[in-house]
Amino acid sequence: MAAKPNLPKGTRDFLPEQMFRRQYAMNLIREIFEKYGYEPLETPSIERLDVLSGKYGDEGEKLIFKVLKRGTGLENLLHEQDQFVVRKYQDLVDEALRYDLTVPLSRVVAMHQHGLVFPFKRYQIQPVWRADRPQRGRYREFYQCDVDTVGTESMLADAEAIVIVYEVLTALGFKNFRLRINNRKILNGILHYAEVKPEAENSALITIDKLEKIGFDGVKNELQEKGLTATSVNRIFSILEITGKPKDLLSELRNSFSEIDSLRDGADELEEICDYLPDFGVPDAYYDIDLFLARGLGYYTGPIHESIVEEPKIGSLSGGGRYDQLIGMFLGRDIPATGVAFGIERIIDVMAQLDMFPPSRTKTRALVTIFDETTRATSLKFSQELRKSDVPTESVFDPSKLKKQFTYADKRGIPFVVIIGPEELAQNRVTIKEMKTGEQKTLDWGKAVEFLRER
Amino acid sequence: MAAKPNLPKGTRDFLPEQMFRRQYAMNLIREIFEKYGYEPLETPSIERLDVLSGKYGDEGEKLIFKVLKRGTGLENLLHEQDQFVVRKYQDLVDEALRYDLTVPLSRVVAMHQHGLVFPFKRYQIQPVWRADRPQRGRYREFYQCDVDTVGTESMLADAEAIVIVYEVLTALGFKNFRLRINNRKILNGILHYAEVKPEAENSALITIDKLEKIGFDGVKNELQEKGLTATSVNRIFSILEITGKPKDLLSELRNSFSEIDSLRDGADELEEICDYLPDFGVPDAYYDIDLFLARGLGYYTGPIHESIVEEPKIGSLSGGGRYDQLIGMFLGRDIPATGVAFGIERIIDVMAQLDMFPPSRTKTRALVTIFDETTRATSLKFSQELRKSDVPTESVFDPSKLKKQFTYADKRGIPFVVIIGPEELAQNRVTIKEMKTGEQKTLDWGKAVEFLRER
Repeated sequence: MAAKPNLPKGTRDFLPEQMFRRQYAMNLIREIFEKYGYEPLETPSIERLDVLSGKYGDEGEKLIFKVLKRGTGLENLLHEQDQFVVRKYQDLVDEALRYDLTVPLSRVVAMHQHGLVFPFKRYQIQPVWRADRPQRGRYREFYQCDVDTVGTESMLADAEAIVIVYEVLTALGFKNFRLRINNRKILNGILHYAEVKPEAENSALITIDKLEKIGFDGVKNELQEKGLTATSVNRIFSILEITGKPKDLLSELRNSFSEIDSLRDGADELEEICDYLPDFGVPDAYYDIDLFLARGLGYYTGPIHESIVEEPKIGSLSGGGRYDQLIGMFLGRDIPATGVAFGIERIIDVMAQLDMFPPSRTKTRALVTIFDETTRATSLKFSQELRKSDVPTESVFDPSKLKKQFTYADKRGIPFVVIIGPEELAQNRVTIKEMKTGEQKTLDWGKAVEFLRER
Repeated sequence: MAAKPNLPKGTRDFLPEQMFRRQYAMNLIREIFEKYGYEPLETPSIERLDVLSGKYGDEGEKLIFKVLKRGTGLENLLHEQDQFVVRKYQDLVDEALRYDLTVPLSRVVAMHQHGLVFPFKRYQIQPVWRADRPQRGRYREFYQCDVDTVGTESMLADAEAIVIVYEVLTALGFKNFRLRINNRKILNGILHYAEVKPEAENSALITIDKLEKIGFDGVKNELQEKGLTATSVNRIFSILEITGKPKDLLSELRNSFSEIDSLRDGADELEEICDYLPDFGVPDAYYDIDLFLARGLGYYTGPIHESIVEEPKIGSLSGGGRYDQLIGMFLGRDIPATGVAFGIERIIDVMAQLDMFPPSRTKTRALVTIFDETTRATSLKFSQELRKSDVPTESVFDPSKLKKQFTYADKRGIPFVVIIGPEELAQNRVTIKEMKTGEQKTLDWGKAVEFLRER
């Protein structure tokens, strides 16, 4: 008996029915990206370790999948010796699996800067790998769907990312979702005003971002535990607690705190975005300014945003923002960039839970059965006629009782079955049976092809 | 200055223009697979090492990319100590990158046998990784396009794979291609008749397969160098040298060598395939029986085939065959299977060389310019109108001289530019300029949308 085959932890096979759904969601997203003029990019799954190192923080760094060196004699050592000594890290590994799509984009821009046309509007839909502890909804290999504009400081690019989120979630069938928008510049201004030390800023932002989970008091306590003074915490909250409709909130920010440069700049940027959104046809009710939104990644420098579905509570479906300094890490000079990433795996999981996918389970429209050996050639020919008219068609390979062939069509979810028996053969006609209703009709070839093409 | 970014050896970035071509070829192939009722499958990029081991021969085994273990303290050892001792292979690696798509398919069938409907007709288009020495046209990360039928011994499944090759190459625009067909059973019969020892069979097949490269004498010499007797070599050639149209060749084989069971069975199978092909509408001139065709992979058990373009000489574009025993390596009992893999990277390279791709470089149809700040809102609104009618449209983000915006459209290969200046604004019209001809026309919004949708 062969060894029982198994999958690596946190990875999945996607069988046809799941693929059908994944393709549905990803194609729809791709079409919207393309409708806005974004163009596809693919990068290798493997990157040099030095390209990925130092980009994802200490915790992220640990989760990078590293690839063993090849062809250095290591293979032989591994096979032939009982033990051997490794002297340094670089003896073992030099490459690693892609961890996200933003760092590879930045590397591409740095490497191909003279061959690209700016603004470079690209989308990328590819898997990434993280050696996270697998759990419900968290995988070690998962797809990301990113859309970014590189090479412009225009807030129109940020607005467009926000519009694309609206359009994607609407097209996928989500309701009751909204977008939370903030600006890292505002947050930086607040922390500056509150006299938080630069080295404590990131940690403070992580705490502020936890409002939904731990509430106002939780955030206050945690900030104090992290060593912020009561005065600092009060100053922070005096601003964070400002709420209201976007325009009102932004006015109040600017009126009350115009002396904080960074805060004022951030508010100006958001005001500009809010001016553009109506021109894109996005309803006001769709977005809010939420000053507690910080988003985890260290590389954001301007507007940030995340979409959440209100009911059922399922967390964020997209997250994005402006990162004007990341590409500089590769290039040595900054190039502005902004974009958004869709949590496509969560989107697919939620859509399945909420029964949001179309009911069909296959693209195949017709199963052409084989009555017996005498009719087989005709069945094959009719199958080809259907395919010529772009009707996805499966031919039965092994003649068996018709009932068994019907059962197969049913199991596969194929909506129509074509029967060519001796009678049909004699009349040069075919019988079409609709699986759902059991309804049958006998038609000549042309009519039958037309009927199946139109369904 | 940041470290100069670079790519791992043998890997590539696909920038938008290349992606456009790759998507063109792969979508076309996918559509044909689906037209024949094949359904998508995706498997993880990472497989357990024990799943891949022992499947690709010693040479293949060396080329497998192995993934360093995660979270076992190895990370810490690597970072903190000057040196450490590795006692066995399994201390370091437990997973590896996918090497082909056939072994993962076999694993899927073994793991999900009770959830799949047979025959299981699946296609799979995903990258694989091989640590081969990179050279022109050979990459370390490359896509494969496979289509297979699992669970039937019917020669119709083999015939259909052959038909799909015909249809794919035709649709991609290849001319002067043909298919070479053989059967491993015939080759086995020949070797048996020539009294070649079982342990020498694989090696003999590898030599026979070299006919195109080293000629008749080359093959004869190499077989003798490999220790086959002159009698053996003569017997082998007495059969291999039979040529003729498929039906004639097969008749002669069966008339002259009917006592060799395996050879006769193999000829019967090919005869059956040749009977089916005309029903699929495939012309006779498309395929030949070529008794020298052996194909490298050890796992083939029945019909095998490969497509070659005659002019220019570019090698094979697809290869496939029946492998009735591979799944048994995982399952403990055999499940018959057959299919074909397209050399998609070579296909794309050749199509680029021969200028076979459509001339457009982008899906984006229109660039909506911004005349100045006063017209920006209207430009945005018109962009949205175009998108609502499914015209892929890019909006200019940074207002600049119109000429500069035209240059951008030109560089991006966008065919139409939309201008909304003060005059157009006043008249509620837009001007459309066709980039190729320079032709301009001013239309009202509805007509303009219609015009761009139809182009």
